[in-house]
Amino acid sequence: MTDQNIVTACLIIIGDEILSGRTQDSNLAYLAKWLNGQKIQLAAARVVPDIEDEIILAVNECRRKFTYVFTTGGIGPTHDDITAESIARAFSLPIEISADAADRLAARVGRENMTPARLRMARVPQGAVLIDNPVSAAPGFQIGNVFVMAGVPAVMQAMLDTLGGKLAGGSEMLSRTIHVYAGESLIADTLEAAQNDYAGLQIGSYPFYLKDKYGANLVLRARNLKLLEAATAGLKARLGEIGVEAIDGDVSAGGG
Amino acid sequence: MTDQNIVTACLIIIGDEILSGRTQDSNLAYLAKWLNGQKIQLAAARVVPDIEDEIILAVNECRRKFTYVFTTGGIGPTHDDITAESIARAFSLPIEISADAADRLAARVGRENMTPARLRMARVPQGAVLIDNPVSAAPGFQIGNVFVMAGVPAVMQAMLDTLGGKLAGGSEMLSRTIHVYAGESLIADTLEAAQNDYAGLQIGSYPFYLKDKYGANLVLRARNLKLLEAATAGLKARLGEIGVEAIDGDVSAGGG
Repeated sequence: MTDQNIVTACLIIIGDEILSGRTQDSNLAYLAKWLNGQKIQLAAARVVPDIEDEIILAVNECRRKFTYVFTTGGIGPTHDDITAESIARAFSLPIEISADAADRLAARVGRENMTPARLRMARVPQGAVLIDNPVSAAPGFQIGNVFVMAGVPAVMQAMLDTLGGKLAGGSEMLSRTIHVYAGESLIADTLEAAQNDYAGLQIGSYPFYLKDKYGANLVLRARNLKLLEAATAGLKARLGEIGVEAIDGDVSAGGG
Repeated sequence: MTDQNIVTACLIIIGDEILSGRTQDSNLAYLAKWLNGQKIQLAAARVVPDIEDEIILAVNECRRKFTYVFTTGGIGPTHDDITAESIARAFSLPIEISADAADRLAARVGRENMTPARLRMARVPQGAVLIDNPVSAAPGFQIGNVFVMAGVPAVMQAMLDTLGGKLAGGSEMLSRTIHVYAGESLIADTLEAAQNDYAGLQIGSYPFYLKDKYGANLVLRARNLKLLEAATAGLKARLGEIGVEAIDGDVSAGGG
């Protein structure tokens, strides 16, 4: 079935500052939504510390398992930025100064200011393709199916902008959201029955408590629009049978 | 060295809603800080979808590699909550209704309201120890070195409260933060030299751009307080030598 052509990606978040709780990651959620627009599904993510062997292990496991791998973090000029050399080692490639990357940095800061620290940001594995950085010049890079990006959200987002439309995607994951004011326990059997009505349909239930009322956002996901619309109507009908009103759209609230 | 007694943990975040970008995870940063207070280091994290085989794979890899594993998500009453049975399968244990857990739920909702869906939330792998849920009754559980918690942040945090002081920790990771108003490229060599002055010291550099000024928060981390204080003084002195003022404390800004 052509609507089951699933293209997957994995995100590897590199950085002690995430694992110490110092920095709250926001790149995962941004990347997930961006990938969905490219018809690519974020299928997994990992957070690894600034330790070369851990980065290499994660990159080598994930690049074999997923269509694409994205990394964020660790491409700055300081000693704790070890992503570029770790990726080179993961691919068993030498690391080298990219003349193109060095030119981009020099154009930004002036050739007279191209210190060894700045030049660190021009190092890429041999054969890597640069990813443009419209914000602060220092580029990311692509090697094989791995896309290496900055950790600073504004820079990562600008890098993604430059990649838009360039990655082969599959069939898009489509979704519809409805919500109910009823406890999850009351609707659990109905949800399971509704999901079982359709192969290729997933229903996620995300409870909320809002204005003194319990409820749940119900997200239906499928790659086939007709199936999705039929399933949404079917779920509404099934909820009606147990006296629960289904309301279109999402009620926002924390959860998981 | 007793100050190198490192106890590690890994977080496995379970849920399609995180990988779709629908829900922004906040449990990782909270758990990281809580663990640090328990003298346990969050050494890695993974996000996995609501797919049993993926949960089992992640749990079995991580419970062998780390002292403790925490999971969040997937312990509600609906069909997409498959964490309990996945953990049971990871440990090759049968899953069973815990009478204790069922009693806690019944005390909350009334015994006459103990539907099959609610009873789902009382299922744990055989031999599991319940984790109290002061917020909404449905307990988490511990099996082996794996702690299974809710995904809703308020519930997860309440569960952690009940675990405080009960897990064996190691030596605490201590930190000092200073900041400078200087680009990272200018201070990169100094940071590397300062880190090389001390075995057991890590220096992280986190750039910011604030009020039209470039700067960096510099986080020094070590398990030995004397070493940490000497290293902080040493780094300040080295920065002074290159004409950069080091200011105590953290300037907040996004980054990574």
